[in-house]
Amino acid sequence: MHDATGPAFTYTPIGTIHSPYTDIAGMPIQPVGARGVRGTIEIKSDLCGGLADLDGFSHIILLYALHRCTGYSLTVTPFLDPAPHGVFATRSPRRPNAIGLSVVRLVGIEGCVITIEDVDILDGTPLLDIKPYIPAFDSHPDTRCGWLTHVAENARDTRSDDRFR
Amino acid sequence: MHDATGPAFTYTPIGTIHSPYTDIAGMPIQPVGARGVRGTIEIKSDLCGGLADLDGFSHIILLYALHRCTGYSLTVTPFLDPAPHGVFATRSPRRPNAIGLSVVRLVGIEGCVITIEDVDILDGTPLLDIKPYIPAFDSHPDTRCGWLTHVAENARDTRSDDRFR
Repeated sequence: MHDATGPAFTYTPIGTIHSPYTDIAGMPIQPVGARGVRGTIEIKSDLCGGLADLDGFSHIILLYALHRCTGYSLTVTPFLDPAPHGVFATRSPRRPNAIGLSVVRLVGIEGCVITIEDVDILDGTPLLDIKPYIPAFDSHPDTRCGWLTHVAENARDTRSDDRFR
Repeated sequence: MHDATGPAFTYTPIGTIHSPYTDIAGMPIQPVGARGVRGTIEIKSDLCGGLADLDGFSHIILLYALHRCTGYSLTVTPFLDPAPHGVFATRSPRRPNAIGLSVVRLVGIEGCVITIEDVDILDGTPLLDIKPYIPAFDSHPDTRCGWLTHVAENARDTRSDDRFR
């Protein structure tokens, strides 16, 4: 594993995500549970130029730092299943590298501020990257999803508690 | 923007991705262009426990450090279009935070080694995170994709050059 024991990688936020959620407990656990919930992203002024043409996309992928999570467990009992699973087989925020991923709707862009919808992200979350959501690359409707096969649809109505604080 | 000028975030690789691609030039530019191409992921031995139940998923999301990319431009002329676009409206690897995202097929897991398929990733790439691909969360087939609307399907046959080295 000499490769993997190489250097760490440091990333500086490109902006901040603002949402109605100020507490980890009680949040939607995925964007499907946050339909219509609006938020904004403030991009650093020196990076705004990188947003050109993003408004042509209806959905964007956000990568962000799960900055309120401390530490991790290799085995996790997720919100959607009473059974424990390996952390990499879940979307638990308490991961070895606590990077969050959400696909949200892009409502509009004004200057350095992006308005988004279906936001399942904590207010004040540091944004690391934005990528356009491209169905030809990112949409795989007919995939097998293990323990989530019968419970994934419950994410729409499930809210978080404080287990991952 | 005081939030976004907060601390940087440092992540230590959880493993290393191995693939047939040892040079940035000539690579597939997305997994759709790497159908059937096999690779392996070596997970650090102390993190292997986190892989439990991952083998139930046919596709996984890999987040990795684009470690060979240095610097970035806010405006990029991507492989699929002769016109320049804002970097956040492209999948260019030369981004302010050079984090790569690929959805690949999971072939099998043996101990700390994951065999994957549809690999568009450079050999030796440091892996930051693995998330299960969950269609109910991640598949959005009918989204609008701006400048890529008419060229996304060309990604299957397009190969990279050295512009993002």
